[in-house]
Amino acid sequence: KSQFDPATHPHRRFNPLTNEHVLVSPHRNKRPWLGQVEPPQPSNLPQYDPNCYLCPGNTRAGGRKTDIYNDTLIFENDFAAVLPPPGPAAPSAPHPLLQTEPVQGGCDVLIFHPRHDLTLARLSLPDIRKVIDEWCKIYLQRGREEGIAYVQIFENKGAMMGCSNPHPHGQVWSLSIVPTLPATEIKNLKNYALTTTLESSAPRGPYGRACMLCEYVHFEVGVESESGRVVTKNEHWVALVPWWAVWPFEILPVLPYKRHISSITSLTDEGKDSFAQILSTVTKRYDNLFACSFAYSMGIHQRPLPRPEGSEGEDEDDVAHLHLHFAPPLLRSASVRKFLVGFELMAEPQRDLTPEQAAQRLRSCSDVHYLDVD
Amino acid sequence: KSQFDPATHPHRRFNPLTNEHVLVSPHRNKRPWLGQVEPPQPSNLPQYDPNCYLCPGNTRAGGRKTDIYNDTLIFENDFAAVLPPPGPAAPSAPHPLLQTEPVQGGCDVLIFHPRHDLTLARLSLPDIRKVIDEWCKIYLQRGREEGIAYVQIFENKGAMMGCSNPHPHGQVWSLSIVPTLPATEIKNLKNYALTTTLESSAPRGPYGRACMLCEYVHFEVGVESESGRVVTKNEHWVALVPWWAVWPFEILPVLPYKRHISSITSLTDEGKDSFAQILSTVTKRYDNLFACSFAYSMGIHQRPLPRPEGSEGEDEDDVAHLHLHFAPPLLRSASVRKFLVGFELMAEPQRDLTPEQAAQRLRSCSDVHYLDVD
Ligand SMILES: O=P(O)(O)O[C@H]1O[C@H](CO)[C@@H](O)[C@H](O)[C@H]1O
Ligand SMILES: O=P(O)(O)O[C@H]1O[C@H](CO)[C@@H](O)[C@H](O)[C@H]1O
Repeated sequence: KSQFDPATHPHRRFNPLTNEHVLVSPHRNKRPWLGQVEPPQPSNLPQYDPNCYLCPGNTRAGGRKTDIYNDTLIFENDFAAVLPPPGPAAPSAPHPLLQTEPVQGGCDVLIFHPRHDLTLARLSLPDIRKVIDEWCKIYLQRGREEGIAYVQIFENKGAMMGCSNPHPHGQVWSLSIVPTLPATEIKNLKNYALTTTLESSAPRGPYGRACMLCEYVHFEVGVESESGRVVTKNEHWVALVPWWAVWPFEILPVLPYKRHISSITSLTDEGKDSFAQILSTVTKRYDNLFACSFAYSMGIHQRPLPRPEGSEGEDEDDVAHLHLHFAPPLLRSASVRKFLVGFELMAEPQRDLTPEQAAQRLRSCSDVHYLDVD
Repeated sequence: KSQFDPATHPHRRFNPLTNEHVLVSPHRNKRPWLGQVEPPQPSNLPQYDPNCYLCPGNTRAGGRKTDIYNDTLIFENDFAAVLPPPGPAAPSAPHPLLQTEPVQGGCDVLIFHPRHDLTLARLSLPDIRKVIDEWCKIYLQRGREEGIAYVQIFENKGAMMGCSNPHPHGQVWSLSIVPTLPATEIKNLKNYALTTTLESSAPRGPYGRACMLCEYVHFEVGVESESGRVVTKNEHWVALVPWWAVWPFEILPVLPYKRHISSITSLTDEGKDSFAQILSTVTKRYDNLFACSFAYSMGIHQRPLPRPEGSEGEDEDDVAHLHLHFAPPLLRSASVRKFLVGFELMAEPQRDLTPEQAAQRLRSCSDVHYLDVD
């Protein structure tokens, strides 16, 4: 009987953050693609577009004006998914299976830079650092508003990821509830902390307990040459294709071996510069992979809320370990994506190349943006 | 303080099949859409396309020939996601967090009809019935093969749902494991059966225990005029937009009030005709909603495997209640879809109209296909 080879034999891997499996079918990438081809991402965008509602001084769809700004700009979404608290109380359920839970909160838009034609991949490190500082500011501000239980920072990039404007920007949704996915992750991190006795020298979470992500990353970085899932790392951060990646070139950058960090506001100044640097490298390599402006959804997972003002020491919410997820759809080229449909929606996510193969491809990409070569 | 109104106030609803929430932001549908516009679905397709590898007698990408057929045709996928059992044993895990589980099985393609230009929405009831009979056959055949633990029947329809060929067809993936989503549903159905004492007159699951879906549908059909989530029903089947729908026009057709049915092979002849009829009505209304060939992913959830040959009476797997999920992406028109990205991928699915509004729209669609009018 033959030896098991992950690059030949279909298998599934377990995601301990979500308790879900992914089916890996490495040989499947060879099949011919006859399906939908994505339109090319716009290139040669102007630095200023008079029709872009995010360019400085222009008018938005709701009639409001976007301020003139020099660096970043944050403003309330004109079409927010939630309304500010307080709201009316929940109606009584007509049946135990039909529960309604009112949700309040606020939605903000964060413009990364005044120039219409740039993206994170093409911003300077100081400019990315300004975006990180804005994230810290809004996380603290929204997270300390009355009635808010969770702040989600994210970015949709590229038309194929539902982004309606190429002007570099992200969003921040602050809600009166902790949404499904972060709630699940935090539950699993808590459970790991309470049930695992570690023998490794990985950093620990709060109360000296085991942290699943510290432990996982400690292993990946320690056996880097063996496992081959690390894409890049610097003084504080590591970016890797996780063992359980679903999207073809999914990346999970985490704060690694140095210490357990539960939110962006716990980063030192140096840790924030290091964060800017890894964001720059990851997004550059993404663009270089297929020589295009690489589409993705990105989100920051951390403590649901910042530590209360003036608090000292740790609390239960510090079980969260700051990390970002990048979910990019492209699979084979700038125009051929992976569709997570059919089997994926009805049964289980399935991928066509191994995470190790994906990491290998991303490792071999240059750190110089393809548009800046020459 | 104002009254809670589900069509005005953002709220979340709980999906008891998956233990996940969906955020409902009904007012959000008013925002202008400046994002990606989907290319039109092909219309005026030929009845036979010499370049289509699913048309009778044509050659496929792998070099094999598609048989000449008159009704349906089933064959093994040339680029299967899994390989037949047995396979090599699992390698030992380099770390407890990095588990590998080998998966074996088979992938089949089921062509619904020889005509290239038809879809379920345009097939006659007897032709849809033939598809249902094929589903029963392959479910029995694959489900009784050595080493198979689960059979997933599904259809990807439309380029926007990753379908590479408009020729009407679906897929069947048979695996040595029970995938994440059906495993979760079955766990939740079991849990409901073991912990719920019913007072309603809904049908019961195996061993006289409560069935979550029987109970849910009994409630929806009983208060039909009130709840407004039922789209259409016939003698045996009901199609409704579930309370917890994620996709804009998601439909969950279930076998309703008459009795608890755990798989398609337990349907009577009449139940199968009734199934064909509701499939026809649902897909016609979908096409009529935006006057286009409506894209979706569809999947059948039922017992992981058919009852063992010759077995009598019920067993624990009968806790499953046969149902189909339709996940269609279109939101506002034939060319504007909902993107489940960003917040949805990082936090929680979010929808822009209430399930009741979606059901209302689908109820007002005609049962006569728009291409057959005149
Ligand atoms: O097998 P197909 O139709 O070529 O491929 C399609 O369906 C599969 C199963 O849902 C998905 O994994 C693919 O991403 C999708 O493009
Ligand atoms: O708010 P936007 O960018 O217009 O909209 C985009 O992001 C939202 C949050 O991820 C999604 O709900 C929308 O489907 C998507 O089109």
